[in-house]
Amino acid sequence: MIIFLKQDLSLDKEKLFRQFLVDRRVEVIPIKRKEQLLLVVVGRFGELVRREVESHPSVAKILETDRPYKLASKSFKQQATKIHLDNGTVIGNKHIIFMAGPCAIETKEQIRGIASEVKSAGCQILRGGAFKPRTGPYDFQGLGKIALHFLKEAATEFEMAMITEIMDVRDIELIEKYTDIFQVGTRNMQNYPLLKELGKTRKPVLLKRGMWATYKELLLAAEYILLGGNEQVILCERGIRTYVPETRFTLDLNVVAYLKHETHLPVIVDPSHGTGRSNLVRAMSKAAIAAGADGLLIETHLDPRKSISDADQAISTVELKKLVKEVKRVAMAVDRK
Amino acid sequence: MIIFLKQDLSLDKEKLFRQFLVDRRVEVIPIKRKEQLLLVVVGRFGELVRREVESHPSVAKILETDRPYKLASKSFKQQATKIHLDNGTVIGNKHIIFMAGPCAIETKEQIRGIASEVKSAGCQILRGGAFKPRTGPYDFQGLGKIALHFLKEAATEFEMAMITEIMDVRDIELIEKYTDIFQVGTRNMQNYPLLKELGKTRKPVLLKRGMWATYKELLLAAEYILLGGNEQVILCERGIRTYVPETRFTLDLNVVAYLKHETHLPVIVDPSHGTGRSNLVRAMSKAAIAAGADGLLIETHLDPRKSISDADQAISTVELKKLVKEVKRVAMAVDRK
Amino acid sequence: MIIFLKQDLSLDKEKLFRQFLVDRRVEVIPIKRKEQLLLVVVGRFGELVRREVESHPSVAKILETDRPYKLASKSFKQQATKIHLDNGTVIGNKHIIFMAGPCAIETKEQIRGIASEVKSAGCQILRGGAFKPRTGPYDFQGLGKIALHFLKEAATEFEMAMITEIMDVRDIELIEKYTDIFQVGTRNMQNYPLLKELGKTRKPVLLKRGMWATYKELLLAAEYILLGGNEQVILCERGIRTYVPETRFTLDLNVVAYLKHETHLPVIVDPSHGTGRSNLVRAMSKAAIAAGADGLLIETHLDPRKSISDADQAISTVELKKLVKEVKRVAMAVDRK
Amino acid sequence: MIIFLKQDLSLDKEKLFRQFLVDRRVEVIPIKRKEQLLLVVVGRFGELVRREVESHPSVAKILETDRPYKLASKSFKQQATKIHLDNGTVIGNKHIIFMAGPCAIETKEQIRGIASEVKSAGCQILRGGAFKPRTGPYDFQGLGKIALHFLKEAATEFEMAMITEIMDVRDIELIEKYTDIFQVGTRNMQNYPLLKELGKTRKPVLLKRGMWATYKELLLAAEYILLGGNEQVILCERGIRTYVPETRFTLDLNVVAYLKHETHLPVIVDPSHGTGRSNLVRAMSKAAIAAGADGLLIETHLDPRKSISDADQAISTVELKKLVKEVKRVAMAVDRK
Repeated sequence: MIIFLKQDLSLDKEKLFRQFLVDRRVEVIPIKRKEQLLLVVVGRFGELVRREVESHPSVAKILETDRPYKLASKSFKQQATKIHLDNGTVIGNKHIIFMAGPCAIETKEQIRGIASEVKSAGCQILRGGAFKPRTGPYDFQGLGKIALHFLKEAATEFEMAMITEIMDVRDIELIEKYTDIFQVGTRNMQNYPLLKELGKTRKPVLLKRGMWATYKELLLAAEYILLGGNEQVILCERGIRTYVPETRFTLDLNVVAYLKHETHLPVIVDPSHGTGRSNLVRAMSKAAIAAGADGLLIETHLDPRKSISDADQAISTVELKKLVKEVKRVAMAVDRK
Repeated sequence: MIIFLKQDLSLDKEKLFRQFLVDRRVEVIPIKRKEQLLLVVVGRFGELVRREVESHPSVAKILETDRPYKLASKSFKQQATKIHLDNGTVIGNKHIIFMAGPCAIETKEQIRGIASEVKSAGCQILRGGAFKPRTGPYDFQGLGKIALHFLKEAATEFEMAMITEIMDVRDIELIEKYTDIFQVGTRNMQNYPLLKELGKTRKPVLLKRGMWATYKELLLAAEYILLGGNEQVILCERGIRTYVPETRFTLDLNVVAYLKHETHLPVIVDPSHGTGRSNLVRAMSKAAIAAGADGLLIETHLDPRKSISDADQAISTVELKKLVKEVKRVAMAVDRK
Repeated sequence: MIIFLKQDLSLDKEKLFRQFLVDRRVEVIPIKRKEQLLLVVVGRFGELVRREVESHPSVAKILETDRPYKLASKSFKQQATKIHLDNGTVIGNKHIIFMAGPCAIETKEQIRGIASEVKSAGCQILRGGAFKPRTGPYDFQGLGKIALHFLKEAATEFEMAMITEIMDVRDIELIEKYTDIFQVGTRNMQNYPLLKELGKTRKPVLLKRGMWATYKELLLAAEYILLGGNEQVILCERGIRTYVPETRFTLDLNVVAYLKHETHLPVIVDPSHGTGRSNLVRAMSKAAIAAGADGLLIETHLDPRKSISDADQAISTVELKKLVKEVKRVAMAVDRK
Repeated sequence: MIIFLKQDLSLDKEKLFRQFLVDRRVEVIPIKRKEQLLLVVVGRFGELVRREVESHPSVAKILETDRPYKLASKSFKQQATKIHLDNGTVIGNKHIIFMAGPCAIETKEQIRGIASEVKSAGCQILRGGAFKPRTGPYDFQGLGKIALHFLKEAATEFEMAMITEIMDVRDIELIEKYTDIFQVGTRNMQNYPLLKELGKTRKPVLLKRGMWATYKELLLAAEYILLGGNEQVILCERGIRTYVPETRFTLDLNVVAYLKHETHLPVIVDPSHGTGRSNLVRAMSKAAIAAGADGLLIETHLDPRKSISDADQAISTVELKKLVKEVKRVAMAVDRK
């Protein structure tokens, strides 16, 4: 149950109501939204208490949901969440969002060169890795802070927003200074301390689905962020681990169609990791949009063969331009732009 | 290696050449195609023999492929295989193919009623189960022969082709009298005696991917049929077994994009089994076509709640009409019809 | 529900009772067991009919189970099913059963040579493939009938029973003449026509779990055989398809422990396919017995490197001898022999 | 490649050698072990440099391995790693290790009561969760710091070591004061900042396999810890995500047998999570030890039905005593104690 308190409630009345709940052993988590205070109830309680709460003079309304993810569910919020970025881009709107860039930022020139092409392809958001989660400790771990600087500069020059990955709670303050969107990678989908801290920021968070995660687990991970009061969560399907050896991961588009019924949060698809093969990226980008996705997250490189990491799945910026054009045609066929 | 013999080769010369191969311990499987005789080489041989074969006067050309599925690969045949049905439908052409109907044929009236709606929705092929493979022996196993009759009548009345499942080698002769396309279900993808016998028929075979099968295994299963001389194989993705509990299967559209690079055979997608949830079927149908599929295989029922089997995944015929319309818009956006 | 008719019931009374059921629209499948006639009820019926049946003078007792696999469940039969072979071997008893031999029978000398070693290692059953289900049509498909002859001769000479795979319903009559146990391979676990025909024979059937199958699906596949009146079904875990690349399959020993709670049928484990790596076979054989398995099915070769198929997973007969010794020690530690 | 420097090398000579490497663009990570300095080489270099390094006067020996996990591989260290705890327990020795306790610490009395039973069952290590990673934010998240205190007290009173989970890099200092072993849960197997920080501590780390992780990924995660100089890593199999619905996870014992060939690190099995069903825990514990595991991690509760979390998989302390007895018999049968 979620309790919506009345909008101009005095602090005293709020306190009294909180005590009223304590007396009835109803545990709640408070969320301050622009408009009002919500109290999300943890656990269950009887019908009697429900009625008392509902009819309490400080309560505007209560909302009950049978979903374990209360704030992420459509019963909490029917209309789609729209996320507004500083460069005017809106995620979750009619327009398809294209986020593209290299897996890892290698040099200032590299990211500037790619940014120029990504912009001219029609993308709104520049991606690039500064802190890279790598399976092995001997792999290239990213350039770190300096790469944030390069990425920001390139994004700014070409009037794009930027997105970059966060792995460590201790890096939030630093990355927040640069980024427009925090990206949480697949390995960290259930890194709860990280999710909780990101819930306290007011920057959008793109949450990648764990390669092992059920739909419910993804939505519950989003709930950790929402519960901190950060309403700007973007879900991202990036492929799951299956037995198929021919692709790096199996891109699960069922989840896109499912989430569109289940949640108000925008959904992005990463066909680069989701296939691991550059020659499948274009077709699967179109499929993702046809399935209902709000945008795409794509790895691109001026010359993919020279990329330090993930060379097999990055597409060239030339290919990216074709992709954007073709995807836009499909977007129109499903009443998007 | 595949050896193409010259077209008007005398039987004597053919025999001599076969002996020439036997002498060199080259084992082959002969395939008689309309135009000419192919000899598909089993196993390997040295460079010397290769040259001897290539320059032999009875040989038109040889073809080498690094793929384990020789006849199914694009190196054997570059242009897409088109399958012509008696009602004028062509599978593998620009037009998207819609196959729809009930999971199981229940009565003559049921299938006739559905057929009428399926036709008016714009579908070319009527599907329906007469012999049903059921997980449990106490489940409804299909009406058998009489259902073939009902299905044929309904398809004929509404000028559609029909497709129905074959499970038992001993039923081929019977089903062949009725059906336009044999359907091989997911559980039988590696039922080799069945595949071999279907290779001897000259009716199209829709081969569903095993819910556990790799892309290579699917293509090798098709190869069993092709090697019998039956060139009309249609591949079908219908969802794979993964850990995801929210859907019945995980529809793998990566395979569609992959197959379009790898084989000349047409590819159909079954979003009904591939999701197991009727409210996801429409979105995933559009995604399948955007990924490059040549058509769809859909479970539909006048009133899905009354269906004997697979009620959760069948869509109503009303929903089917919407689906066909929406899919056609996506088809145009990817240069199909 | 299963209805046990009284033991010396006259044919007339049986007929009358069958009519009594028809009148109440209760559909049954009759099973003639040595002792008596069982009627397995398909579908559901009301409490009233249940009481009428229970108190009917021709009925000895009725048995209700909440399991979908009625005959395979422990509620039908509590004590373990014991399968007696002609060479005196009993499967499902205290003694651990060792079935070993080559993947494919290659020559008379090969199988005789291996048989001699397999016997001296302490194995009771000789395995060998005559008809091989192979993923690709260009792979060695087995020697066929002649191999059955070789296998029988070798088994007989060394006083072992034999087991060999059946793939095609049309081969049952032939293979039945030779074999002591039919083996149904993983690809055919849901080949229902085959299972039904095997249910009509009176030879034991070793049913391998499909590499994609749930525990329930395995038990329902067994039910197809049991329902034909063949009580001698042996279940076999042989590894499932997972995302793990380091082994060929993931051997699921949870299923062994689970089946021991759920069914009276004996359970065999195939660690050769279940790992696909010869250096893991010994450890996993011991683990299988510790988990509660009744026996092992092992690929062995005099010189595994020279084996035509599955060379990576076959162990040498020298290794087999060590394995049998070590497994017997573990067997004693879990009160087996 | 790993470079072992000579043992009594002066700091000057060390510096000179480091410069020698820098000049040749050989990047290394230094590890100070009790005895000596190791330099683990990142990336590749030519044969010429290899010879120069090998014959350098400051170098004791070099070691080359074809494995991506250099320090975790057997080529680095052949004999098994033994981990000595303060209470005299040695992990990785002949004696099987039993770690048992509740999923979550609920009260001081609860953990003391369980500790008493766990000790009398013959376990050497007490487990209990203070900080719990929970799929949903509304689930019980653990008592936190106070629970560490309760656990330590109970362990000390009954002369056991303790193990508890770490989720957040910011908690290392706190937990280190209490625990004998850090437990890294399945969701954090690829939480690289956490692994790196744990590499800097000198307390043993039990690293649970990600429910999606390959064997190589598990070993590379361990490598992150080892590379920090912490040699005391314990690997733990706890079940993987598969399609099987009857168990919570599929316990993969293949990995145990594989790791015993591949690494010198001890391997523990968690049959409680690996099955999710209390009635399978005993059988799978025996199987784990037969497969080669060095110990078990088991959830137990005085009355499992009253447990706050994971009630289905916890066994009673009465059952635990049977388990320890039975496991010890199997241990002897595989030459352990």
